[in-house]
Amino acid sequence: MKQYSIVISLLGALLYGIAQSVAADNTKLEDDANRIAAEALKSPLAYQILESLTTEVGPRMAGTEQDALAVKWAVEKFKQLDFDRVWTEPVTFPVWQRGEESASIVAPYKHQLAVTALGMSIGTPEQGIEAEVVSFPTLKHLSEADPKQVEGKIVFINHKMERHRDGRGYGPVVKGRGAGAVEGAKKGAVAVVIRSVGTDSHRFPHTGMMRYADGVKKIPAAAISNPDADLLQRIIDRGEPVRMHLQLDAKIVGEYTSANVIGEITGSEKPEEIILIGGHLDSWDLGTGAVDDGAGVAITMAAAAFIKKMGFKPKRTIRVVLFANEEQGLVGAKAYAKAHADEINNHITGSESDFGAGRIYEFQSNVQSDALPFVHQLQRALKPLGVEYAGNQAGPGPDLIPLYRAGMGVFSLEQDGTDYFDLHHTPDDTLDKVDPEALAQNQAVYAVFAYLAAQYEGRLDLPEQKKKQ
Amino acid sequence: MKQYSIVISLLGALLYGIAQSVAADNTKLEDDANRIAAEALKSPLAYQILESLTTEVGPRMAGTEQDALAVKWAVEKFKQLDFDRVWTEPVTFPVWQRGEESASIVAPYKHQLAVTALGMSIGTPEQGIEAEVVSFPTLKHLSEADPKQVEGKIVFINHKMERHRDGRGYGPVVKGRGAGAVEGAKKGAVAVVIRSVGTDSHRFPHTGMMRYADGVKKIPAAAISNPDADLLQRIIDRGEPVRMHLQLDAKIVGEYTSANVIGEITGSEKPEEIILIGGHLDSWDLGTGAVDDGAGVAITMAAAAFIKKMGFKPKRTIRVVLFANEEQGLVGAKAYAKAHADEINNHITGSESDFGAGRIYEFQSNVQSDALPFVHQLQRALKPLGVEYAGNQAGPGPDLIPLYRAGMGVFSLEQDGTDYFDLHHTPDDTLDKVDPEALAQNQAVYAVFAYLAAQYEGRLDLPEQKKKQ
Repeated sequence: MKQYSIVISLLGALLYGIAQSVAADNTKLEDDANRIAAEALKSPLAYQILESLTTEVGPRMAGTEQDALAVKWAVEKFKQLDFDRVWTEPVTFPVWQRGEESASIVAPYKHQLAVTALGMSIGTPEQGIEAEVVSFPTLKHLSEADPKQVEGKIVFINHKMERHRDGRGYGPVVKGRGAGAVEGAKKGAVAVVIRSVGTDSHRFPHTGMMRYADGVKKIPAAAISNPDADLLQRIIDRGEPVRMHLQLDAKIVGEYTSANVIGEITGSEKPEEIILIGGHLDSWDLGTGAVDDGAGVAITMAAAAFIKKMGFKPKRTIRVVLFANEEQGLVGAKAYAKAHADEINNHITGSESDFGAGRIYEFQSNVQSDALPFVHQLQRALKPLGVEYAGNQAGPGPDLIPLYRAGMGVFSLEQDGTDYFDLHHTPDDTLDKVDPEALAQNQAVYAVFAYLAAQYEGRLDLPEQKKKQ
Repeated sequence: MKQYSIVISLLGALLYGIAQSVAADNTKLEDDANRIAAEALKSPLAYQILESLTTEVGPRMAGTEQDALAVKWAVEKFKQLDFDRVWTEPVTFPVWQRGEESASIVAPYKHQLAVTALGMSIGTPEQGIEAEVVSFPTLKHLSEADPKQVEGKIVFINHKMERHRDGRGYGPVVKGRGAGAVEGAKKGAVAVVIRSVGTDSHRFPHTGMMRYADGVKKIPAAAISNPDADLLQRIIDRGEPVRMHLQLDAKIVGEYTSANVIGEITGSEKPEEIILIGGHLDSWDLGTGAVDDGAGVAITMAAAAFIKKMGFKPKRTIRVVLFANEEQGLVGAKAYAKAHADEINNHITGSESDFGAGRIYEFQSNVQSDALPFVHQLQRALKPLGVEYAGNQAGPGPDLIPLYRAGMGVFSLEQDGTDYFDLHHTPDDTLDKVDPEALAQNQAVYAVFAYLAAQYEGRLDLPEQKKKQ
């Protein structure tokens, strides 16, 4: 018994020592996190990066001259920011060109409309299309319509997006953007025009991707601004036949190879294990891509750079990936997952910033239950930044979907997106819309997240039941 | 003495009787005014008129096809609204055409700019103008600059407008729009580009009139949006030479005769005496002219119509004048004053609505001192509508300047213009920006003003000392 007691006492002392040491490490770590947060909150770094990108590059739609310029800019910026490794990985895709575009109501009244082609739409014949307009409140109404109502007409989907902080108004409405042309064509429509997927009331049409389906005729697809949608509906509501003229030069012109641009702060103890943060480097062509997704690029570049600049040595590698061509189908994300298939299990966790430049107000995790100590640590560290924990059901940012599907746990650092869809995919997505203080708070949150995740000993995989889904 | 007493007593009784009768009349009149106010506040009439104009006509720049359409619309609308007399008076002016327009920064970075020609600007040569940009914070800085700095360059005037409820930020900045081309040309500039005269931060350039001077070379003049002005200045601030390409097709193409459209509720006792309210029927071409000045058209048509509709019989004539071509030099206003020169003294007073659709929060008068009883009566009647009296220094609305100069007293019913210059002269001037309740309040204020002025016995001339100015 006595020997047992001694053994137990020794064991107890040992465990106590370990616990003490872990507690001391954790205290040190949390102090470090607090220092990072406090310093990053005061730093203009992310804003400077965003200013540089929007001023020196501007719009950078996939496959354009400025796409190449953005890649060059990103490589140089990573180097200026003293990242340990900087490289590019090729991403190839078809090039969609917008061209000239116009739309007008020609009867019973004449109005020029603020219009833009949806991404990947085909063009109209050179002289345009003129046809009667038939209006549906939602995609569902179109899908359920009698083809006789639709045949030979231009379909107008007048689905108004709701404004919410978390952007949940987007999902229900964007379906019409994606599938409107297919549903319309199935019923014999000659073109589809949607109310812009956006919460503003300005004369800016919102572009964005649409899709065709095999075996369904391709018809041109465009968006008109919200005020123009109001006008068109008011005219339709008067009851006389309404005729529209639509002219789009949009087309696919060959293939282009752009690049994911990657910079990393190499881990001091487990360099092969990766904490991935990032955004997408491409934007639509209409604005300068300040909030979509220059902000995400700037926030995550700055966050990682900041950790190194403050002299911290993350144990795991913090990798910043600036994805190519997110807008036209997550092309860079798919290329990244493919190129890194053999090390996918080394991607410990990640978070993408792709919801503008608003302040982060909460975070969600999506990790296995034995990683909860990390979640609680992050919760304590982010609280001084005004960020609350909101549960273990985070979705991946769009470019993290392939990694998420491979089982990587994800974190969602939720930005206030109240105004995001006022600007999203419009000419109005410019630097003046970004609050430098909110951007600095984002940079602080990302820096704390990345650093804590890099120092955490355990894995941060998705819960087992989710992996099986 | 006794006879004196009797006379005095009789005189006293007589005066008392008159006073009683006047008091009773005034009480009746103020009750009527309160009834008009209460009913007009609930009426959608002005909004219906504005909806009709912006939907069925839309933009109506002077000399365009829609100018003619607007005249036709206004005649029909006056008739529908049961005005006693409706007629048009010719207004002739040169026709300015906008044409295609584009601007871009070509070095050191490439950016397309949101640009529009200023009204009456000449075009560039067909291939455009490319030159280095020189930036000045205000017109004054340009005027004081060394010509060596300016010669052969595109002048950029980067004067930012301040936001104020009463719009007083406009005056200092609009000078650069009016005189920038002349001041630039005097120093050898090849074109002038201004930061838009507007308080918004959207990618909409604000158009508006500019002027040339005899003996000074004409150079093209354009405005870029506020976000584009920010961008251009950021690039200039980097210190390298900045080059811009500007292409404008603008030109004058002959002459056109449009019309002032006039409707009146004829006075029951003094039909020859006129209370003039109105707005201008023309708009710029970029938006649908909802706030500039569809609102003024709708408010004043509705106000006058409402008085008749409620069964009131104004003693004086209430005349609603919808002026042609205000935007390009008050052409309709000058034509009206000329056509009515022989009855100008019969224009008792007037008020123009040409500052958007915001709620009226105060009014000013500009009348001789013996008209103060009327001012006080109006003050009492407008108080329930939330309108305070703010003094006897009202300026005339733009189209009332000729009548004001001829000695007509004016009233300024001051609208909240906090947001007015966000929309002014842009594509974004559309119906959705108008609050129907605020519009109804305007209609109530104008109806009360017009009715009380029509019933008032005395004259409402400018103060003598102002007439002499």
